[in-house]
Amino acid sequence: MTKKATIGVLGASGYTGAELVRLLLRHPRVEISLLTADRRAGMEMRDVFPHFAPYDLPKLVSIEGMDWAAAALDVAFCGLPHGTTQTVIKKLLAEAPQIKVVDLSADFRLADVQAYARWYGHAHQAPELQPEAIYGLSEIYRRDIKKARLVANPGCYTTTAELPLIPLLKAKAIETDEIVVDAKSGMTGAGRAPKEAMLFSEVSEGINAYGVGKHRHMAELDQEFSKAAGRDVVASFTPHLVPMNRGILATIYVRGRRGRSAQDLHTILADAYAKEPFVHVLPFGETPHTRHVRGSNMTMIGVAADRVEGRAVIVSALDNLVKGASGQAIQNMNLMLGFPETMGIEQVALFP
Amino acid sequence: MTKKATIGVLGASGYTGAELVRLLLRHPRVEISLLTADRRAGMEMRDVFPHFAPYDLPKLVSIEGMDWAAAALDVAFCGLPHGTTQTVIKKLLAEAPQIKVVDLSADFRLADVQAYARWYGHAHQAPELQPEAIYGLSEIYRRDIKKARLVANPGCYTTTAELPLIPLLKAKAIETDEIVVDAKSGMTGAGRAPKEAMLFSEVSEGINAYGVGKHRHMAELDQEFSKAAGRDVVASFTPHLVPMNRGILATIYVRGRRGRSAQDLHTILADAYAKEPFVHVLPFGETPHTRHVRGSNMTMIGVAADRVEGRAVIVSALDNLVKGASGQAIQNMNLMLGFPETMGIEQVALFP
Amino acid sequence: MTKKATIGVLGASGYTGAELVRLLLRHPRVEISLLTADRRAGMEMRDVFPHFAPYDLPKLVSIEGMDWAAAALDVAFCGLPHGTTQTVIKKLLAEAPQIKVVDLSADFRLADVQAYARWYGHAHQAPELQPEAIYGLSEIYRRDIKKARLVANPGCYTTTAELPLIPLLKAKAIETDEIVVDAKSGMTGAGRAPKEAMLFSEVSEGINAYGVGKHRHMAELDQEFSKAAGRDVVASFTPHLVPMNRGILATIYVRGRRGRSAQDLHTILADAYAKEPFVHVLPFGETPHTRHVRGSNMTMIGVAADRVEGRAVIVSALDNLVKGASGQAIQNMNLMLGFPETMGIEQVALFP
Amino acid sequence: MTKKATIGVLGASGYTGAELVRLLLRHPRVEISLLTADRRAGMEMRDVFPHFAPYDLPKLVSIEGMDWAAAALDVAFCGLPHGTTQTVIKKLLAEAPQIKVVDLSADFRLADVQAYARWYGHAHQAPELQPEAIYGLSEIYRRDIKKARLVANPGCYTTTAELPLIPLLKAKAIETDEIVVDAKSGMTGAGRAPKEAMLFSEVSEGINAYGVGKHRHMAELDQEFSKAAGRDVVASFTPHLVPMNRGILATIYVRGRRGRSAQDLHTILADAYAKEPFVHVLPFGETPHTRHVRGSNMTMIGVAADRVEGRAVIVSALDNLVKGASGQAIQNMNLMLGFPETMGIEQVALFP
Repeated sequence: MTKKATIGVLGASGYTGAELVRLLLRHPRVEISLLTADRRAGMEMRDVFPHFAPYDLPKLVSIEGMDWAAAALDVAFCGLPHGTTQTVIKKLLAEAPQIKVVDLSADFRLADVQAYARWYGHAHQAPELQPEAIYGLSEIYRRDIKKARLVANPGCYTTTAELPLIPLLKAKAIETDEIVVDAKSGMTGAGRAPKEAMLFSEVSEGINAYGVGKHRHMAELDQEFSKAAGRDVVASFTPHLVPMNRGILATIYVRGRRGRSAQDLHTILADAYAKEPFVHVLPFGETPHTRHVRGSNMTMIGVAADRVEGRAVIVSALDNLVKGASGQAIQNMNLMLGFPETMGIEQVALFP
Repeated sequence: MTKKATIGVLGASGYTGAELVRLLLRHPRVEISLLTADRRAGMEMRDVFPHFAPYDLPKLVSIEGMDWAAAALDVAFCGLPHGTTQTVIKKLLAEAPQIKVVDLSADFRLADVQAYARWYGHAHQAPELQPEAIYGLSEIYRRDIKKARLVANPGCYTTTAELPLIPLLKAKAIETDEIVVDAKSGMTGAGRAPKEAMLFSEVSEGINAYGVGKHRHMAELDQEFSKAAGRDVVASFTPHLVPMNRGILATIYVRGRRGRSAQDLHTILADAYAKEPFVHVLPFGETPHTRHVRGSNMTMIGVAADRVEGRAVIVSALDNLVKGASGQAIQNMNLMLGFPETMGIEQVALFP
Repeated sequence: MTKKATIGVLGASGYTGAELVRLLLRHPRVEISLLTADRRAGMEMRDVFPHFAPYDLPKLVSIEGMDWAAAALDVAFCGLPHGTTQTVIKKLLAEAPQIKVVDLSADFRLADVQAYARWYGHAHQAPELQPEAIYGLSEIYRRDIKKARLVANPGCYTTTAELPLIPLLKAKAIETDEIVVDAKSGMTGAGRAPKEAMLFSEVSEGINAYGVGKHRHMAELDQEFSKAAGRDVVASFTPHLVPMNRGILATIYVRGRRGRSAQDLHTILADAYAKEPFVHVLPFGETPHTRHVRGSNMTMIGVAADRVEGRAVIVSALDNLVKGASGQAIQNMNLMLGFPETMGIEQVALFP
Repeated sequence: MTKKATIGVLGASGYTGAELVRLLLRHPRVEISLLTADRRAGMEMRDVFPHFAPYDLPKLVSIEGMDWAAAALDVAFCGLPHGTTQTVIKKLLAEAPQIKVVDLSADFRLADVQAYARWYGHAHQAPELQPEAIYGLSEIYRRDIKKARLVANPGCYTTTAELPLIPLLKAKAIETDEIVVDAKSGMTGAGRAPKEAMLFSEVSEGINAYGVGKHRHMAELDQEFSKAAGRDVVASFTPHLVPMNRGILATIYVRGRRGRSAQDLHTILADAYAKEPFVHVLPFGETPHTRHVRGSNMTMIGVAADRVEGRAVIVSALDNLVKGASGQAIQNMNLMLGFPETMGIEQVALFP
């Protein structure tokens, strides 16, 4: 039997950390050897997430003063807050350059460190690492991810919007100045830090937009859309909070270019993803629910004709904690370690 | 003391019927004298809606063979299914021409009976009444409603989208060929008839679009937007179902015309609704939650700048059962009977 | 026209404070002249609760250094945390002895200040006021409340359990050593202070018991049950959190004494509450939903026979923020000021 | 490689059917060869449950006129309605006696066919099969299940109550005439057939008891509790509906017998289940949430002292569709086929 890869989850007390542990516990070729959580250091994982009570897991430790060479990890997943991650990874790779890193924060997603400074309000702390960071949208950058040491796992909103739009932009099939992305997210996307606006009673029985005109995920969208189109693309993007735990639904309004019909756009997407295990394009005219992907690494995409001549409505759905975060992170790990790409993340959606 | 107006609620076993009863029970100048519900005829209202158990209400009767002259109503509210309503109202007004009617169905909303036939798939059964029907968007058609005998209460989606867009279209302040209305509704909008897709387990913990490119409310939008703009307007409109009982949120993407900024659009709306008791325009940049209007007749509207140059995002929220249906119906009744417009519908939103 | 009573709401930034404001804004004989909220002092109420944006309300001020004589209040509602309230009320009544106080905290609910010290872990700070404090279960202590200056509004769990059990205990109709109260509460009962366990994602899609064997509301239950029975009664009581905003359901298991059947118990309750506007006893065998009382001051009670010979199941439902807190507080204010008892709190339940 | 077992799921269009398919699709030693659904015969599984769209599954067929010998099944799971199942299984076993059957209906759960007739209102149609039917509570009847041809999978409520109570009754550690089981279930327990009472808007934002004093699951409880205790046991049992999809929580009130403390009861349960993979007893005083077992085959049990001397509160939680139905059915299949008991059902709970 092959030796298992040893895994560290940095930031294990958040939802993406817990989701990594949920999936890694059943991955046949890995072993969790390190869990960090600064404010909860010294506690058992079951004290932080009681659903892990039946399982043996390492005690939570602090990342402060960690000796990364001694940690002997094959892979580190970083589920740390934006901004601090870059410093942690810099130290980690300095002390243990052979560790492969999948970073779930936004710190290494923007190739342009100036754009990073503009959107995040401070200079990047590890600009020398940025050139080797690969944007981890698995289906698009698979080849580079296989060779990468440092993968910047995409954001949940951006994965939902990029998977349907990148093939269309690459094919120059849609107008680039009229794209509207109306996105709706479940509450786990807002994290686990207690804030009044995230209390059950503030969230249930209602819906609202937030960050209108200024959400940080836009920087990622700009980068990837522009790269795919070969020209500057700036889309309208509005995120909303929905009273559900998991799931993102993006309703995307586009206009076909040079007579491309909604049906043509559907064909482009169906062809692009025909062989992908984690992207499923529905028959023309059908659109997905977030319920149909809950708990799974699947993305479902539907395309329908708008009644406005020449326009199409594209709906994309995924689980923000799986394909939108931890599942895609493991998909990337599988690519980086040469494992079968679907290993450990083949769970069928939990419906209802 | 003034004699109270006698009221009939036709279709009292649905959610809009129950909402009418909730509000009318506390309206100081009306008395409910008739409740109809064909499949539940003979039952008490408390058997159909147990929250009415503490109140005295007339027993449910069938509409079949009703003698409308004998019914001696001042006002009839029709919460009947689309299609059958026109026949009921035709008979009612023939037998008792002095009754004032507020119809909550779609039957008299389209001024063009050909458009009705096209969207609903059958010829209108009371085309001779259509000319006198007034579209009951209270803030826009107040003057006509005061003199009307037959008011066609607007749809819930359309009220949400029309209140913010009509003043902008009238002012020729936005481009008319790039309007996107992304609407999100609570489940009471889908009615009370049992269908698999509306079961709790099919709805909770998820969101989905439906009727993409072909929802019937579009006919109403076309009519009112075109009328306001003075030219044909066809907007993109996609409805979604959200796991909540009440509320509609419309996120509307527009482009300012002739250099109009988002701030300019805000000023137009703030001015248009400055004195309205049931439309509240938030300070520029703030957007409403559906939670903030739950159970009330209030509409809240916010305007923010999109980061895409020249574009704005408008968010509009109301309670689909109140301002989107029964509350606005009572607002219209108040206008028709010469009561103070806000009487009986001044409840403050129930939050949380 | 009669001069309106001037009202202060101390602790207006919590849910019970907001609920007081919602109801008082539409009460015909009061005027809100003071809103306090220490951490939010200086803010507008609309910044803390955006659903109040359309209404004129006093700015939030701090309670620190308040001159109560100058405040010129007729009534003060205290929605402050347990423990600090007693100090605030002591100062308030010293400076302005004519103000009537309805306290929504637990501070004056226990007649025995020793019991208070035992359950709350510190000596009572205003023991000299305790003797005049009337326990504000309106239906039971109406006569005393009318003459009271200081009313201790009951807890939400306890109101739910006491309304059905006190008449049965007074009638000596049930065994006192076998009472089980299994209570289920909506999340607003847990307040608005941000805690991880109250986040939407920690609460939705699940149910749990908490405080098993040791919830503080038990002290109140002991006091009232024992008083009604004329002997020491200690009931089993387990609270649960349900993913809903409002509502408490208590499922109560009792054994009839001396051959009393479930039907006999039903008769006792139906008789006791026959004329009460805010307690509705359902026909024998029917049990209420919390949905049927949402947003209203109504309590609904049902009694059914258990299949276990001699036992009955009683189900009691109310809205924890209305009859369980702010609505009953206004009911008590009405009694104290000689207003009609139902004034301003006659809203019909909001269903769905 | 071993040949895979061929599996039929009868009644695949219900929630338990879908849950079987979800789990069996990833079970390494089975293959789904037959899916039946009478009203949906001829449809694809993806038309009935869109979350299966990405997977290859047999088309739905009718059970009418099925040739069971030709079906060549190793195992049939029956997720059919109560009452019709007995006739189906009778024909199936007559035509293909070697097929192993796991029945998820109530048809073969009651050893006494007279009790069946009493509770279900009609004579049993296959009384000759009843003697060989094994009650499929895996942890309790494991030895018999291994040799069984026909397993009657327990109900969801009963599994939740029996796992904690059977060891205590066997040990004669609790009084048998004072047991109260207050159970709370998610909505998938009510099935997928559309009924008004199960609509989202009728269920969300509320809780209610139902079937008070007369739920059919009581027959199963009586049978198993009495068998364990060696004497007639009749417990109080009240089911409730909670606005969540999955999960059952049973709050159980017991009195220790002959001085047994809550701690003693905890010890008995902790010992009984120390080695069980699917029953986890929490440390004394801790109680589980349904959230901690969602989507998994785990049962979590907690024991706490009641403040009433001599009484204890036991809380038990499981996922009604997994351990309460389809997961335990596969656990039983594993036992019947000699597979490792945990195979295919080791998923970690999906939280949040």
